[in-house]
Amino acid sequence: MSGEVSAAAVKDLRERTGAGIMDAKGALQETDGDMDKAMDLLRVKGQAKAAKRGERAASEGLVHTYVHHNGRVGAMVEVNCETDFVARNDDFAEFVREIASHIAAAGPLYVSAEDVPEDTREAELRVFREQAAGEGKPEEVQAKIAEGRMKKWLEENVLLNQPHVNADKHDGRTIEEMRAALSATTGENVVIRRFARFQIGE
Amino acid sequence: MSGEVSAAAVKDLRERTGAGIMDAKGALQETDGDMDKAMDLLRVKGQAKAAKRGERAASEGLVHTYVHHNGRVGAMVEVNCETDFVARNDDFAEFVREIASHIAAAGPLYVSAEDVPEDTREAELRVFREQAAGEGKPEEVQAKIAEGRMKKWLEENVLLNQPHVNADKHDGRTIEEMRAALSATTGENVVIRRFARFQIGE
Repeated sequence: MSGEVSAAAVKDLRERTGAGIMDAKGALQETDGDMDKAMDLLRVKGQAKAAKRGERAASEGLVHTYVHHNGRVGAMVEVNCETDFVARNDDFAEFVREIASHIAAAGPLYVSAEDVPEDTREAELRVFREQAAGEGKPEEVQAKIAEGRMKKWLEENVLLNQPHVNADKHDGRTIEEMRAALSATTGENVVIRRFARFQIGE
Repeated sequence: MSGEVSAAAVKDLRERTGAGIMDAKGALQETDGDMDKAMDLLRVKGQAKAAKRGERAASEGLVHTYVHHNGRVGAMVEVNCETDFVARNDDFAEFVREIASHIAAAGPLYVSAEDVPEDTREAELRVFREQAAGEGKPEEVQAKIAEGRMKKWLEENVLLNQPHVNADKHDGRTIEEMRAALSATTGENVVIRRFARFQIGE
């Protein structure tokens, strides 16, 4: 565990996942340099964002919207890819549609875990730690319990970490897993850039 | 000019426009108590926002979206009214649709003039003053010129101040004028609460 990892492996992992240098290095150290496990780890941690900072620019794409039949909830999402060719691809359009309706139903607050403001994350962690302490858990496991609850919180509030609301159709996969799969089949960087969600009376 | 105005007139003007007490009072003083002129004045100043602060809560309404056929520009808007009855009214739905497509085409930055951050407004005014000075205008008219350009800037960037892009259909009326007309026919406070606009590659 935590041996040295090569710069080439870090670079490779970053290209595959869009993760930052420190995240990619940490994942490879934790998995003894196993690339597949490191990718899984990054995905679980919600860091596998093939992101703006990716080497290849994702500046094409589609804007799509979804409004509930009653007109009281609406969502809009922008998904980027690299070429106009992929933007006009049916699988890409279908993905963008699925994400828009998911956002309307699931109500995420952030695209990726990295978008959660540091003070929000710290405030949540503090509450989870205090909860664990209040439940009389031994001090040495309080941090672990708090981390577990933080992970759950991210699954509930971060789009990429959420399982798609239509679990049957998507085999319980998270949005990040769906994104990674589309990225693999299209061979392009696919980035969920931003979304908005409006609900009447909210 | 600037005589005393009755509390009843201020109240009446506020109910018609949603303007704040000081704005309504100021407008009536400036127009010697002429209600129609005061309403026009408030409209020009972008303060006639039948707003959140209105006495009657506008907590019903519709979310509507518009996406250009190429999927590269999308807009979403939330418009509030007071009752579910009006929210299901055809005129209301038509208004919401017209606003969504207008936003996609015109690309406003703010809903109302009051939403322009103070430092943005000051920075713009400073530029306009410097421009007027640089053009060699007499010092005593520089402020007037800058104010005129500020008004134009608001018309270009503030949704309520913009004439609807479909000028033929809407007789060149601004979004605020369309909103006020709908408010009059429905007898309810109509509030454009928020919007979002996404453009690929922007």
